[in-house]
Amino acid sequence: MQPHEVSAYRRIYRNELFDSVIPFWLNHSIDREHGGYFSCLERNGTVFDTDKFAWMQGREIWMFAKLCSAYGTRPEWLAAAKAGVDFMRQHGRAPNGDFYFALDRRGNPLTAPYNIFSDCFMCVALAEYARVSGDSQAAQEAQDIYHRIQQRKDNPKGIWTKAIAGTRSMGAMGFPMIQMMMARELRGLIDEETILRIVRENLALFFDRHVDRERKCVFERVPMGGGRNFDNMEGRLLNPGHALEILWFIMDIAHTMLNDQAMVEDLADIMLWCIERGWDKQYGGIFYYQDYLGYPTEKLESTMKLWWVHNEAIIAMLLATRLTGSALHEDWFKRLHAYSFEHFSDRAGGGEWYGYLDRRGEPVFGLKGGKWKGFFHLPRMLMVCEQLLAQMEAEAVQ
Amino acid sequence: MQPHEVSAYRRIYRNELFDSVIPFWLNHSIDREHGGYFSCLERNGTVFDTDKFAWMQGREIWMFAKLCSAYGTRPEWLAAAKAGVDFMRQHGRAPNGDFYFALDRRGNPLTAPYNIFSDCFMCVALAEYARVSGDSQAAQEAQDIYHRIQQRKDNPKGIWTKAIAGTRSMGAMGFPMIQMMMARELRGLIDEETILRIVRENLALFFDRHVDRERKCVFERVPMGGGRNFDNMEGRLLNPGHALEILWFIMDIAHTMLNDQAMVEDLADIMLWCIERGWDKQYGGIFYYQDYLGYPTEKLESTMKLWWVHNEAIIAMLLATRLTGSALHEDWFKRLHAYSFEHFSDRAGGGEWYGYLDRRGEPVFGLKGGKWKGFFHLPRMLMVCEQLLAQMEAEAVQ
Repeated sequence: MQPHEVSAYRRIYRNELFDSVIPFWLNHSIDREHGGYFSCLERNGTVFDTDKFAWMQGREIWMFAKLCSAYGTRPEWLAAAKAGVDFMRQHGRAPNGDFYFALDRRGNPLTAPYNIFSDCFMCVALAEYARVSGDSQAAQEAQDIYHRIQQRKDNPKGIWTKAIAGTRSMGAMGFPMIQMMMARELRGLIDEETILRIVRENLALFFDRHVDRERKCVFERVPMGGGRNFDNMEGRLLNPGHALEILWFIMDIAHTMLNDQAMVEDLADIMLWCIERGWDKQYGGIFYYQDYLGYPTEKLESTMKLWWVHNEAIIAMLLATRLTGSALHEDWFKRLHAYSFEHFSDRAGGGEWYGYLDRRGEPVFGLKGGKWKGFFHLPRMLMVCEQLLAQMEAEAVQ
Repeated sequence: MQPHEVSAYRRIYRNELFDSVIPFWLNHSIDREHGGYFSCLERNGTVFDTDKFAWMQGREIWMFAKLCSAYGTRPEWLAAAKAGVDFMRQHGRAPNGDFYFALDRRGNPLTAPYNIFSDCFMCVALAEYARVSGDSQAAQEAQDIYHRIQQRKDNPKGIWTKAIAGTRSMGAMGFPMIQMMMARELRGLIDEETILRIVRENLALFFDRHVDRERKCVFERVPMGGGRNFDNMEGRLLNPGHALEILWFIMDIAHTMLNDQAMVEDLADIMLWCIERGWDKQYGGIFYYQDYLGYPTEKLESTMKLWWVHNEAIIAMLLATRLTGSALHEDWFKRLHAYSFEHFSDRAGGGEWYGYLDRRGEPVFGLKGGKWKGFFHLPRMLMVCEQLLAQMEAEAVQ
């Protein structure tokens, strides 16, 4: 990428983060009466549902704390993070210590702790908060949650498991991914050797099971015993945004922790399989879900264009551009950037990005936040890209 | 409606049922190797997932048996019903007698019996099958399942319940509806007095809780203690297709069981609230979900156009036309008919109807059957409408 382009992109990402996305959430998501965060925010920031979801609380705490780590602590960011920590400390946990899935506005529990990702996001949230606030209780809480997750990990849904054991045992990509993510986020709280072991184990799982070199595919759910199961939709499911999220995450590990350029180059190739298959050649944008054999998917929203899919794809292509110098990845980055800033970004309508577009790229709803869209993928992408572009600027000068 | 129109519509519905829909399922859905039914059928009938879902097995048994009741037993229909009954007798039940949610092709259980609707549909399936086959064991099974459902009904999800008791107790429209449906289908197996009691209880529940005369709305989920809860999406959810399904079902009860023409007229008015609010004035068709206050819904597929929504709306408007003579309802029937036969019906591409259209009316997938689309709403609608039109023909002659 030309140096002037790098600088121009950097300004765009920084500007979008600081002038559009952060103010939107600071202004609209913090519940100044009962604590914690609202997630369901209409186009202009109006709260349209006051329930509080543990995933979204954890992710927003993490993100505000991460901004302090990345750009220096600002009192309003730290206060925003603390609002989530205080609320979740007071209301978040069931008697057994696991986190409820949802609470009402006042913190009364609505939904049982059936979803271990609630705990995973609270774990990394408290770890990052401990780092920037100096709150040592938070560090201890993060470690305790982490150990509890390790106890639950072979049966994460507990009594809420609906799958009958033994008939068809499928492994999903999400759990190895979040194990690596937690391990990295808990650096300093877990010894480096353990982190490296967890990373290597889960990398092996990902490459052996999910990456299919013959079919040039990353499968979302795979038989635990190996091989493929194409008789059912589950075994054929592709989720290109999720694959790209994992691929950039691993690429970063390969570069920073393993110093393995061959793995970086390999991951860059795999990214191309996903984006080339996942890109909608008719209307642009990346499909949410696809079926490997081209059959219908179980999900009705498969052809929709989701903000987070494009966020993760942008990071993937920019990171690959930086680490491999590949012109193909640079082209994809530019194409994804153009599509996303044209269709998702809504500077004119209150800031932030639309979450959900139809296949043609028109918003289905005006929402900027919802039960599954919080202060996470978009600000993380803008931050990571701003930092990558800053590194590229610095590298160009050298 | 003019007599020549009635006859023309009747030919269309009969033809669609006998020449397009029934042959599609007879040819493609019956698993002649392992028994039971495939539900996941592509545009041309290709099976794209071999799993077997208890809901869909129950509904298909019921429908083939019902066709025998309505049009006289045909050996291929009875054999098709028996294929489902045999498979579910052999494989359908967990050790405690409840029905699994899903089985694999061979009948090995995949998903635990967390969903009481599996049992509800198997109950009415066996009752109808008993009636047309003379298999008295099936009648006994239907009664046993029915009694087990009555035991489970206050805690239908059992150990799989995720909602925390006490915080927010919401009642959904589906369960009163299916209680009335089962009671009617079990006529002859349950005494008439009990059936009438169940109908009256659930009618009161529906009118008191779900019908909001001030707001001219039928709410899908309502606080058990009465009133409205508009702070969250759940309390504002509208599902016009589901409301219209319940409304025609109750209208039929009001006419045939209660002989209450005032209730019929009232229900006809309520139908208009639902269709007028639910109709997409920009692209035509009925929305899947809506939010009472116009906010985003939790469901990403809200603006899509679903076959069953239109099936139920067609029955509602035709029944209201017949029982009230209302020109408004007749206009809606004709508009729904025109939209549905233009957009959903696929005589040219193998028969049957598309299941899922985008907001503009274009098919999102080619599928004719899926995990949630079986041999039920469409053939039931065609059969019910054909019978209504036959009655209207006869009434015109008198």
